[in-house]
Amino acid sequence: MIVVATPNPAVDLTYRVGTHTLGGTNRVLDVQRRAGGKGVNVAHVLAALDVPVRAVLPLGGDAGRWLGSALAVPFDATACEAQTRSTVTVTGDGHPTVYAEPGPELSAAEWERFSALLATRIRDADLLVISGSLPRNAAPELVGEWVRLARDAGVRALVDSSGPALLAAARAGADVKPNREELLSATGAADETSGAAELSRLGAGLVVVSRGEDGIAAYAPSGVVSAPVVPGVQGNPTGAGDAATAGLAAALVRGLPLEEALRQAAAAGAAAVLRPVAGEIDLSAYRRFLNGAST
Amino acid sequence: MIVVATPNPAVDLTYRVGTHTLGGTNRVLDVQRRAGGKGVNVAHVLAALDVPVRAVLPLGGDAGRWLGSALAVPFDATACEAQTRSTVTVTGDGHPTVYAEPGPELSAAEWERFSALLATRIRDADLLVISGSLPRNAAPELVGEWVRLARDAGVRALVDSSGPALLAAARAGADVKPNREELLSATGAADETSGAAELSRLGAGLVVVSRGEDGIAAYAPSGVVSAPVVPGVQGNPTGAGDAATAGLAAALVRGLPLEEALRQAAAAGAAAVLRPVAGEIDLSAYRRFLNGAST
Repeated sequence: MIVVATPNPAVDLTYRVGTHTLGGTNRVLDVQRRAGGKGVNVAHVLAALDVPVRAVLPLGGDAGRWLGSALAVPFDATACEAQTRSTVTVTGDGHPTVYAEPGPELSAAEWERFSALLATRIRDADLLVISGSLPRNAAPELVGEWVRLARDAGVRALVDSSGPALLAAARAGADVKPNREELLSATGAADETSGAAELSRLGAGLVVVSRGEDGIAAYAPSGVVSAPVVPGVQGNPTGAGDAATAGLAAALVRGLPLEEALRQAAAAGAAAVLRPVAGEIDLSAYRRFLNGAST
Repeated sequence: MIVVATPNPAVDLTYRVGTHTLGGTNRVLDVQRRAGGKGVNVAHVLAALDVPVRAVLPLGGDAGRWLGSALAVPFDATACEAQTRSTVTVTGDGHPTVYAEPGPELSAAEWERFSALLATRIRDADLLVISGSLPRNAAPELVGEWVRLARDAGVRALVDSSGPALLAAARAGADVKPNREELLSATGAADETSGAAELSRLGAGLVVVSRGEDGIAAYAPSGVVSAPVVPGVQGNPTGAGDAATAGLAAALVRGLPLEEALRQAAAAGAAAVLRPVAGEIDLSAYRRFLNGAST
């Protein structure tokens, strides 16, 4: 079973407008609402891949209540006082515009309850995935703490985060999966190889770097392995990175070789591009991509 | 007591961003959330003016539950199945950008329950105010029905709406308070005087037209009366029209002469401009404006 921790879940709203006018009033033609946040997307894709999964997340206010009701996987939530955040994506003419709320500020006691809940759930896990940002004013070191909880229980941890939280995960010995920009930004390195080396030096296990159009690479003690992107796939890239994390996590718990795990990650990422919303993949395309087909 | 019906209330969210980027991701620095919708704003300003007021509105889902908890006036709500809508206003560099959800679709049975509730509350009222848009697919004639409910109970009705709903209100004999654009758009008239004449011809009592910088005018059987805008007031114009409606309604139930009622409406509108959010007025400025002071 994979436990997925989402420290900053979100109610993802998509507004469809006609012409998008900055500085004016836009009538929203259609509203879609779904449970989101990177970890929630990962958990949903794992469930689609038939991997037993359990989400652990803080939920607050009426937005948190709604999010809980919209989760398609088993979950445990700690209640927090402040509202779970929303994100608004406006689609219409041109490229989507995203407004990302920073997320609620949790008290120290609320984080303690969250960590305690996670510790309980980790006991039954084969892998802990921690995915996404931390909410406002949360200490990046929390991610390190959760990784150590897992490692103390003999459970591997895979972290997709950015900035100081990514560094804290590496220091605590997690496998990490930043995208290339996150890797360079967090480490201050000039190129991917030195960025990955820096995370390894800090203590990271596997360093998996998603490179967008350039595929995915894994830096391991045994060397570097990579898989190309599935060619010719066009659609909605939002959530593709989360689907790749899910594909990678599924392969890791099945004990597959690293090269095969990267192929599964790339196939899951491409199969997510074919779906209009994050947290979903086109399963038949996923199977075709695994068998070496392009679109 | 004034009963204020808000057929399409909204959770008003204000997002503050740094630079506002169309087609990109905008980190929201700060989120404000308040109960909104034009009728809710009117009710809140009436309460600020110490006028006994009761709001009647449909509320649905977790957004509706939150909105009820955030109302600062006594209210009665009918539960509806679909979510109460939200509006998002993005402030940052430049003019605010508004995204207005269309509102939930209510079933015929839900509208019947709403009308029945309104009929009960109207019995205790001195005035019924109906303010704002109708939600998605609601029949404009509903507004006419509510006006007739009031008139059958011997209660005056004042309607601030637009389009077919404004025409339905006029036909049912309501006092109406469109702004100039709404008046011209609903009647198809070329100028304000002929637009007001058309609403009178349909059956409207008083036709009060808010003209922005050009003040406010009332077309009555006895002739035309107007009041100028309070000069030199700068700030947030959102909700100024609703505050003017509240000022007008408060004066009407107190039986003040029309000219004085318009002065109160103009003063309340100007006092709302001085407040950063809709539904509030600067009370001391309101009193100064009534005494003839400018800013």
